[in-house]
Amino acid sequence: MKSALSQLGQRTAPPAISWLMSLTLAHPKLISLAAGFTDNASLPVDEARALLDEILSATRTGQPALQYGSTAGDPLLRELTAKRLTQLDAQATSPAPVAAGVSPGGEDARQFESFSNKRGRIPGGRMPPSTAGGTPAATLSPARLLITHGSQQLLYLLTETLCDPGDIVLVEDPTYFVYLGIAQSHGLRCRGVRLLPDGVDLAHLEQVLEELRRSGDLPRVKLLYLVTYYQNPTGYTTSQAKKSAALKLLRRYEKFAGHPLYLLEDAAYRELRFAGDDVPSALIAPGGADRVFYAGTFSKPFATGVRVGFGVLPEPVLTTATRIKGNHDFGTANLLQQLLTRALATGAYERHLAELQRRYAHKAHVMTDAVRAHFPSDVEWREPEGGLYVWARAPKRLRTGPKSRFFQTALRRNVLYVPGALCYADDSARRKPDHEMRLSYGGANERDLTEGIRRLGRALAA
Amino acid sequence: MKSALSQLGQRTAPPAISWLMSLTLAHPKLISLAAGFTDNASLPVDEARALLDEILSATRTGQPALQYGSTAGDPLLRELTAKRLTQLDAQATSPAPVAAGVSPGGEDARQFESFSNKRGRIPGGRMPPSTAGGTPAATLSPARLLITHGSQQLLYLLTETLCDPGDIVLVEDPTYFVYLGIAQSHGLRCRGVRLLPDGVDLAHLEQVLEELRRSGDLPRVKLLYLVTYYQNPTGYTTSQAKKSAALKLLRRYEKFAGHPLYLLEDAAYRELRFAGDDVPSALIAPGGADRVFYAGTFSKPFATGVRVGFGVLPEPVLTTATRIKGNHDFGTANLLQQLLTRALATGAYERHLAELQRRYAHKAHVMTDAVRAHFPSDVEWREPEGGLYVWARAPKRLRTGPKSRFFQTALRRNVLYVPGALCYADDSARRKPDHEMRLSYGGANERDLTEGIRRLGRALAA
Repeated sequence: MKSALSQLGQRTAPPAISWLMSLTLAHPKLISLAAGFTDNASLPVDEARALLDEILSATRTGQPALQYGSTAGDPLLRELTAKRLTQLDAQATSPAPVAAGVSPGGEDARQFESFSNKRGRIPGGRMPPSTAGGTPAATLSPARLLITHGSQQLLYLLTETLCDPGDIVLVEDPTYFVYLGIAQSHGLRCRGVRLLPDGVDLAHLEQVLEELRRSGDLPRVKLLYLVTYYQNPTGYTTSQAKKSAALKLLRRYEKFAGHPLYLLEDAAYRELRFAGDDVPSALIAPGGADRVFYAGTFSKPFATGVRVGFGVLPEPVLTTATRIKGNHDFGTANLLQQLLTRALATGAYERHLAELQRRYAHKAHVMTDAVRAHFPSDVEWREPEGGLYVWARAPKRLRTGPKSRFFQTALRRNVLYVPGALCYADDSARRKPDHEMRLSYGGANERDLTEGIRRLGRALAA
Repeated sequence: MKSALSQLGQRTAPPAISWLMSLTLAHPKLISLAAGFTDNASLPVDEARALLDEILSATRTGQPALQYGSTAGDPLLRELTAKRLTQLDAQATSPAPVAAGVSPGGEDARQFESFSNKRGRIPGGRMPPSTAGGTPAATLSPARLLITHGSQQLLYLLTETLCDPGDIVLVEDPTYFVYLGIAQSHGLRCRGVRLLPDGVDLAHLEQVLEELRRSGDLPRVKLLYLVTYYQNPTGYTTSQAKKSAALKLLRRYEKFAGHPLYLLEDAAYRELRFAGDDVPSALIAPGGADRVFYAGTFSKPFATGVRVGFGVLPEPVLTTATRIKGNHDFGTANLLQQLLTRALATGAYERHLAELQRRYAHKAHVMTDAVRAHFPSDVEWREPEGGLYVWARAPKRLRTGPKSRFFQTALRRNVLYVPGALCYADDSARRKPDHEMRLSYGGANERDLTEGIRRLGRALAA
């Protein structure tokens, strides 16, 4: 008797992440530089406790937090998120010399109180005076937002909304491997676009689009997926100029596709910035409002156990993705949304974020100091300015894949990294590079970071 | 230019629920007997506050609650859930005269402490001595469980795991309308099976299977979906005998299907029982372990803002659904899981449940007293024994659909119900009944329940 599985069910491969996890479980003394976990010691345990205590101390706020909400998400959370994003983009357009984050909240806190007292009314989207002196952009409408169970769910919903089996998505080479898992599960074809330290190689993007036009495959292309800030896995950030140019290129090829070609901007690590300037989102690039899906998250900057992400989407994708989300779960758990809403409105989120940025800056330095001390000089890497990752490129003769001698040696020395090849799409147009590693300073403590890198360095030397 | 939407995206219709919600928003004085909301006043605000405070008071428990977990769900939550389900089934098999629920927890609480002190070790699945004296069934293995973002997500995952467009699912006539939404979105064909007060009409189920065999469509049939306890929308409960018989029938037709024919048992309302005996799950019926998907939830019995559901699934569906869940969100928000784990382990869940059962028993009586007083005698209905709904069947000449004069009259009188026709699948084999109403006593308060029914009664009389 055959199985009753659907085509999607039959196709869906085990995720790379589970294989790495089982290695971690099987080697209890392992130092994992593989996990994309956030730093345990930095988790806002006290803050979450205080905020939840406030929410649940009053019936007026406690009951709604434990009740169903709407599928699109809490109105005030969407409001605060839209305002925050507007401010980030305004400040990034003309960065101030001092302030790194968004103004922590007096005004927000008052607005929150006023809102809480008149539940049901959505405040009118007024912007508080910007403290960082950025050019005020038009405020993003909260109606364009969809709150999701982490930004991962948004990536999934967008795939369902847009992609049929056999469709094509363009991805960075390398890219976020869980997105590749979603694409694999849905039977999509991925085309890799070379990635440079300031974003995709535009000439290569044009070449890929041109090839697809010639082969008649352009009508199957749905979007270009970019992880634009402190990319997973490379740590690279896409410049504003590249975002605009990529949008322009996509627009030029739409007439051959016969439908919109979208830019999916995954900004999951945007807030984990500890050096350099912020870059505006693709939303405010020319044509961005119609063609950009912006995927943001509060999970990484606040707490990964509180899974709340969001998308800013143009129509008809917004309506369709919201309907599909309704079928998934009729809306993200309200308690989590209320927790984030209060964290944002009271300034607790900003305070925690500033602390987190300091902490990751420190851990990144601990890792790169160790890399400098212990890695051979022919391994290339860059100092990260945000996010959780260092991308290390060994000489091509050194294979780093799961079955390589090097990976096995590292494992015997009780240190784990993500083999670079896992981050490349299956794309017959090029061979998968197999001499790179993703090293995360997120989860491990300082001592383990240094020791893990030392062990890897000795394995590299051997 | 065409839209870039996928076939699923193009297909997915607006959910019935959003239309009802917009009516509620447009009529602020409306008494809604439509919403499946749980009772606001009964939400465990104080309990949740105390439990979260405990979790977040110590770094040892607070940090893991704010960190990522595994895709399948927290090991202790799966352990406690498996044990609880085993006990429910054991007690239901030989119901005790007094105790309605499962023993609230001394033993669980101790086990929880012991577990918390040795994080990483999963307790061995021992069963505490049953206080209700039921026949001890074999303990369900926690490895068969998948924790989900509400049981709704499980229904979605199972659809993805098993069903391709054009596949067929058998559903009760009437059934849970959000499941019909998932099926519609995935391009499935639904066949309705007549529902009697003790479960599906077995003769009709056989007839439908036989028709599908003759037409050669049986290979497209994947499952039979039953809402087995206090069904949404009818309030009916499926007897143990019917579950066994349905499984047997499905098994008999497997040779024509060429693959397993599953029974998807949606037990969302099982714990909201306030009269009558519990019924064992289909899991313990002959062949149940291999062919039953059991969908349970903690959201309705605890708090709908805390979305935690679960599935008990046989292979290969369990592995596949878990992989797909990994692509959705790599696991349900850990904070919610830890909250439920502690509620279960400390007995807070049981205490709240007992209170909730009393409350719904009362509200059900308030509604049925009003129905008895105000509805014409030719409207049929039954006294519910659990769940949130009264199903009312008017004489056939009285249409209750969204465009009917009656629905519009009710709306003018500021009372809303779910038109029965929304709960019937599109199935050309029969005409959709259009003279029924789902009335919920979940969300409205006692005064509104009485007044809402009085208004409906006057509209019925008119």
